Amino acid sequence: MLDYNVPGGKLNRGLSVIDSYKLLKEGKELTEEEIFLASSLGWCIEWLQAYFLVLDDIMDNSHTRRGQPCWFRVPKVGLIAANDGIILRNHIPRILRKHFRNKPYYVDLLDLFNEVEFQTASGQLIDLITTIEGEKDLSKYTLSLHRRIVQYKTAYYSFYLSVACALLMSGEQLDNHIDVKNILVDMGIYFQVQDDYLDCFGDPETIGKIGTDIEDFKCSWLVVKALELCNEEQKKALHENYGKPDPANVAKVKALYKELDLQGVFAEYESKSYEKLVTSIEAHPSKAVQAVLKSFLGKIYKRQK
Amino acid sequence: MLDYNVPGGKLNRGLSVIDSYKLLKEGKELTEEEIFLASSLGWCIEWLQAYFLVLDDIMDNSHTRRGQPCWFRVPKVGLIAANDGIILRNHIPRILRKHFRNKPYYVDLLDLFNEVEFQTASGQLIDLITTIEGEKDLSKYTLSLHRRIVQYKTAYYSFYLSVACALLMSGEQLDNHIDVKNILVDMGIYFQVQDDYLDCFGDPETIGKIGTDIEDFKCSWLVVKALELCNEEQKKALHENYGKPDPANVAKVKALYKELDLQGVFAEYESKSYEKLVTSIEAHPSKAVQAVLKSFLGKIYKRQK
Repeated sequence: MLDYNVPGGKLNRGLSVIDSYKLLKEGKELTEEEIFLASSLGWCIEWLQAYFLVLDDIMDNSHTRRGQPCWFRVPKVGLIAANDGIILRNHIPRILRKHFRNKPYYVDLLDLFNEVEFQTASGQLIDLITTIEGEKDLSKYTLSLHRRIVQYKTAYYSFYLSVACALLMSGEQLDNHIDVKNILVDMGIYFQVQDDYLDCFGDPETIGKIGTDIEDFKCSWLVVKALELCNEEQKKALHENYGKPDPANVAKVKALYKELDLQGVFAEYESKSYEKLVTSIEAHPSKAVQAVLKSFLGKIYKRQK
Repeated sequence: MLDYNVPGGKLNRGLSVIDSYKLLKEGKELTEEEIFLASSLGWCIEWLQAYFLVLDDIMDNSHTRRGQPCWFRVPKVGLIAANDGIILRNHIPRILRKHFRNKPYYVDLLDLFNEVEFQTASGQLIDLITTIEGEKDLSKYTLSLHRRIVQYKTAYYSFYLSVACALLMSGEQLDNHIDVKNILVDMGIYFQVQDDYLDCFGDPETIGKIGTDIEDFKCSWLVVKALELCNEEQKKALHENYGKPDPANVAKVKALYKELDLQGVFAEYESKSYEKLVTSIEAHPSKAVQAVLKSFLGKIYKRQK
C-alpha cells in the first residue's frame, strides 16, 4: 500500500523542504542530521499528499493516478482504501514523534501539520458540496469561489507547508512570516490554475492521468473564465454540455474553450501572475527567504506536468 | 453533519473523562474551568468516535447507526461522507489547541490522540483485511486474532483514552500508568465481546442498529467460540452458512449458536471476566485510580445496549 501510493509523484513538495532549508542556511553546508531531518519532513508532506489522493480518488470516483489505477480500484482493495488513507495519515505524527520529539519546535510541527490538514479538508469540502450530483448549477462558478477552493484545498499543503517546515527547522516562529504564507498561497493558486489548464490541454501521457474536470462538473479555472468571456449563445452551449459523461458533450466544451481562445487567455494569466509574484518576492526583506520563494516559482513556471 | 453524527450515542466515552477526573480529585469540588476542560476532552473523544463510525459505515457498507440511516446513505451525501469524517477528525486538534495550548500537558494530549487514532486505524486494518471478499476463510478465526482486532480497533479509544485524558489533566505522566492501560484494554476486550453478543442476541430497538456480523463474515467472538466448541458436522454447517447475505443462511448460523448454548457460554465469560477485572483493579496501589476503574466497569457490566 505504501509502495503503491507514496512514491510515484514528482516529489516537488518533499524535496522543497530540503531545498528551502538549504537556502535559509545561506550556503552553509548541511550536516548529515539536518539532511536527514529535512528529508523526514519532506516525506511527511509526501505521505500527507498520498493520504489526500487516496481519499479524493474514492470521492471523485477517479480512474487513474500517476499513470496507474487509483488505489481503491486495485482488486481486493475497494473501500478499504479509505482506511489505508487514514493509515498513511497516521504515520505523519509517528514520524514527527520519532525524530523531532526533543526539538524545541516539536509542538509547532504538530500544530502546523494539523492546521494544514484542516485547511485542505475544508477546501475539499467546499469543492465537493459545489459539485453535488443533481445540484449542478454553473452560475455559482465564479473566480472568487475558484480561488477559495484552491487556496484551501491545494495552496496550503502544496506550497506553504514545505517552506513552513524549513522555517521551523531554522528556528523561526511562523507567526513572524505571514507575508511568506501569503505569497506561497498566491503561488499555489497559480499552480492550480496550471493544473486546471493541463487537465484539459495537457498531454495525458506527460501528466500521468486522463483529465475529467469537464465530465465531473468541476469548478475549473477554465470554465470560470469561459463563463466570464462567453456571449449568450456560448453560455447556453456551456450550460448544456458541461458536467456530462458523454464524449460528445465534452468535445463541445473543449471546442468552445478553443473558440474563446482560453489557451491565449491562460498564457496571458501565466505571465501576469509570474510578474506579480516576482514583485511580491522582491519586496521581502530577507534575501534568503527571497531565494526560497524564487526557487519555488522557478520549479512551476511554465510547467508541462 | 455535526448534529447528525456527533451526538446520538450513549456518550459513555465522553462522560467518562469528567467522571474519571472527579474520582482522581478524590472528592474535591471541580472548578468551572476544570468541568469545562474535562468536558472539552470528552467531546474530543466523541468527535473521534463519530469520525470512526462515519468511515467504518462506508467501508462495512452498513445501513443503520444509532437508529438512523448511516451518514453516507443520506441523500446528496454519498462518498462525500469520507471527507466529512476527516473534517470531524480535524476538529480534535482545533479544540485541543483552542483550550489547552498553554497547559503543560498540551503536547502529551496531542501525542495521546495521535497514538490512539493510529491504534484504532491499525485495528480497523486488521479487521478489514481479515474479512476481504473472496478470501473468506473461517479457519483463520481464532481467539487470539479476535483479541488483536478488538484491542486495537476498540479498546484503546473506547476505554484507555478517556482515563488517559483525565490522568493528564491531573498532572500525571502516562508512562507511569502502564498497568492502568492494561486493565482498561482488558475491559475494552470484554466490552467488545458484549458488543459481538448483542449484535446477534441483543434487541435491535435497544441497541439502535440491526446486527450484520454473520452476513459480513465478521471475526465475532461468537463465531470464534462456535468454532472452538462445534463438532465436525456443526463446523461444516458453519462454513456453509457464515458470511452469506441470505436470511436463511443467517438463521442457520443463529440456530447453531443456540445449539451450542453460546448464550450460556457468554454468561459464563461475562462473570469470569468481571471477577478477573475486579481482582486486577484491587491490586492497584491508588484508591482513586481503583475508583476510576471500578466506575468504568460498573457502567458496562451486564449492559443491554
